[in-house]
Amino acid sequence: MAAEIFEKRKTIELRKKHVGPSCKVFFSHDPIKIVRARGQYMYNEKDERFLDCINNVAHVGHSHPDVVKAGAKQMELLNTNSRFLHDNLVQYAQRLQATLPEKLSVCYFVNSGSEANDLALRLAWQHTGHKDIITLDNAYHGHVSSLIDISPYKFHQLANAEQSQHVHVAPSPDIYRGKYREDHPDPATAYADDVQDIIAKAHAKGRKIAAFIAESLQSCGGQVIPPVGYFQKVAQHVRNAGGIIIADEVQVGFGRVGTHFWAFQLQGEDFVPDIVTMGKPIGNGHPMSCVVTTREVAESFKSSGMEYFNTFGGNPVSCAIGLAVLDVIEKEDLQGNALRVGNYLTQLLEEQKEKHPLVGDIRLKEQHILLSADGPHRNVLKFKPPLCFSREDAELAVEKIDLILADIEKALGLHMPVTTESEMRAKRKASYEENGDRPHTNGSDHHNLISNPPPTLKPTKRIRT
Amino acid sequence: MAAEIFEKRKTIELRKKHVGPSCKVFFSHDPIKIVRARGQYMYNEKDERFLDCINNVAHVGHSHPDVVKAGAKQMELLNTNSRFLHDNLVQYAQRLQATLPEKLSVCYFVNSGSEANDLALRLAWQHTGHKDIITLDNAYHGHVSSLIDISPYKFHQLANAEQSQHVHVAPSPDIYRGKYREDHPDPATAYADDVQDIIAKAHAKGRKIAAFIAESLQSCGGQVIPPVGYFQKVAQHVRNAGGIIIADEVQVGFGRVGTHFWAFQLQGEDFVPDIVTMGKPIGNGHPMSCVVTTREVAESFKSSGMEYFNTFGGNPVSCAIGLAVLDVIEKEDLQGNALRVGNYLTQLLEEQKEKHPLVGDIRLKEQHILLSADGPHRNVLKFKPPLCFSREDAELAVEKIDLILADIEKALGLHMPVTTESEMRAKRKASYEENGDRPHTNGSDHHNLISNPPPTLKPTKRIRT
Repeated sequence: MAAEIFEKRKTIELRKKHVGPSCKVFFSHDPIKIVRARGQYMYNEKDERFLDCINNVAHVGHSHPDVVKAGAKQMELLNTNSRFLHDNLVQYAQRLQATLPEKLSVCYFVNSGSEANDLALRLAWQHTGHKDIITLDNAYHGHVSSLIDISPYKFHQLANAEQSQHVHVAPSPDIYRGKYREDHPDPATAYADDVQDIIAKAHAKGRKIAAFIAESLQSCGGQVIPPVGYFQKVAQHVRNAGGIIIADEVQVGFGRVGTHFWAFQLQGEDFVPDIVTMGKPIGNGHPMSCVVTTREVAESFKSSGMEYFNTFGGNPVSCAIGLAVLDVIEKEDLQGNALRVGNYLTQLLEEQKEKHPLVGDIRLKEQHILLSADGPHRNVLKFKPPLCFSREDAELAVEKIDLILADIEKALGLHMPVTTESEMRAKRKASYEENGDRPHTNGSDHHNLISNPPPTLKPTKRIRT
Repeated sequence: MAAEIFEKRKTIELRKKHVGPSCKVFFSHDPIKIVRARGQYMYNEKDERFLDCINNVAHVGHSHPDVVKAGAKQMELLNTNSRFLHDNLVQYAQRLQATLPEKLSVCYFVNSGSEANDLALRLAWQHTGHKDIITLDNAYHGHVSSLIDISPYKFHQLANAEQSQHVHVAPSPDIYRGKYREDHPDPATAYADDVQDIIAKAHAKGRKIAAFIAESLQSCGGQVIPPVGYFQKVAQHVRNAGGIIIADEVQVGFGRVGTHFWAFQLQGEDFVPDIVTMGKPIGNGHPMSCVVTTREVAESFKSSGMEYFNTFGGNPVSCAIGLAVLDVIEKEDLQGNALRVGNYLTQLLEEQKEKHPLVGDIRLKEQHILLSADGPHRNVLKFKPPLCFSREDAELAVEKIDLILADIEKALGLHMPVTTESEMRAKRKASYEENGDRPHTNGSDHHNLISNPPPTLKPTKRIRT
């Protein structure tokens, strides 16, 4: 067990004194102090174990020995910038490229998803000579200023949010609760037509579209899985307008969807973005990130005459770690595991949906399960565990969810036998209308692991509940 | 000796294929492949040793064993985000704060100097409610889009550079070759008055100043050391206009100036910036960076209601590494070493100035000394070695510079005994006028380690040559 340096009370006191108050902790009324972690488990200062359902960054499992070893070994040898030749850099670029369609062949190595998405915008601006960006409602693309401009998830939090003139917000292609739903004959076309309308309106004002940017699956925006064909149709409209397509895979890529390595591949082989950004999981916690694009876009960027230099991006240590992560995903068949356990978890959650008419104010910390809520109404439970999550872990998580839901429903007098799915739906609808929309709350004040009505339990997996 | 994975030819081929062509290598006609490094020495694939005078990031020496050990040990235990409590984070914040004036007490941990400076702008915008930024000519503050806007060093490279309306460029306070020089009675006031004029003109247009941002010593901009009192006077003008002061210490801080830990402290104790950004050296190559500000600015930022979350920023591994770097600086008295060896190097270079009338097209790679040129005319040799650089290293570097200068001067027929400093100056001036200004070249196409006339050899040290 790792030694504590300070008592928890002192850690909290120092944090209040020296760390920006905008930086939130989980469970702010009684935050958790984690001193070690391994695989899908985290341990607090009392060596109590927590099942981690929220660390999508610790992709191959916390402190994976192969990844630790690769990083430590390279740190001992050399860690310097990419103005020197190094084999780790080119080998890693080659390996990443092999996971992507062939035309996505040129890499830029950076330190974070934010740096990646900002660079993607710069590439798009330079390549197209245009300025305007189309983004999805509720999207989150990062914390640097250029990305807050294109992240409604963030700029809606501001009291006097002012949307930049070059930013256009398209409806989120959410067929569960969006503008066009499952009962619509062709939601993919309908949502894509909305993008076409935005382009037409921008053109009417003399503006020009540089890029459409979207997560291949919207994560913070509510775990939205766009209908198949949506991105193809959007790409056609955007490219006709001289713009390009940026697929943000920072949260959802790297094998997490199970059937494919990249979430944009769920749309079919006929969809290839012009730029893919990746981040969080690729270094299993090490600060690293990457932008991959086509030769044409890369050459346009070069033609500006401006060098791109990133002090830490693509250093030999980051690349050694990145290579080890790819090796582990392959060696341990973690993409396959994500598919299998993901399907099993979905099945267990479907059973929960049958049992529980309502999902409410859940405090899972007490059950030693770390799980968080997200989406525009903070009413989606977001499963994003390390990929080594097991069937037993899925069972444990759902068992605890079941217990908590039963307790809450009992307290609210809602615990009644549900006979048919349609009755249950009606019940949910009534409850929703009664409660109305909650005001937007701060994205990470997760001390209430809430899921307000209407209930949806969508794992970050390809199957919808 | 570390094994190569690919032959150098293959490494170059893969790099051309898979790495963005805007990402330059040193010595592009025959780049160096470095496979290991230790202290101030780097080794190529043939195990040939190079004296490293250019890696300011490997601050306490390449692959310092204490730093490597701290990083490896923490990676084994835990690497997760700052929404969990961790002692490394608060301990590191406490240690950083102890190096700064008391009012600079609140930290935000990020991954790169670019993320740090972008966050500094966001803090300034939110705190002041104003938009405009005053920056110095030739300044470089980072590669994300908001920072290119305020980096003349970068945006001057663009063919059709368009300066953003909210950006104002003040003259660089360079008393060696700037607008007001050593012969001016009060250059500090004169340069600060120019900032006041800019503010007055912005106000006349109804614009409002959010911040003045400057490196405490301009690095890429030509190793400019502002006259003492300049920042105090600027701060007065900017604060009178409701703006704040951002000191960018990413390249020049952390003990490098020798006499002080932070370069802004060279101005005297009566100058305290509102925000300090730090980066490159603080993790000795590990991607980490920090913004430190006052309680007031931090509380303003919080009042926007928007959380600040940085996935990797302030993770336990980065903080463990940061703590180890601080320990080594102290234990090995590296700040003292920087002062002593810096003074000695300056003395040796002064002797060179006596000997050589001209500094020209230098290719030091052949001498196994890695040194680079920078500044708006790429005519300043920039010494930014690891702080463990020794007297013997200084002698070796200057010996090689001497040899090369002698060769070049002989070839140009310039090798003649110089009797007085004023004659030498006259000679330099004539040669300068003959050659004129070079066009701006790409910041890092360092295959020519050039220093065009007029010659200046300014180490990144407090003493001017």
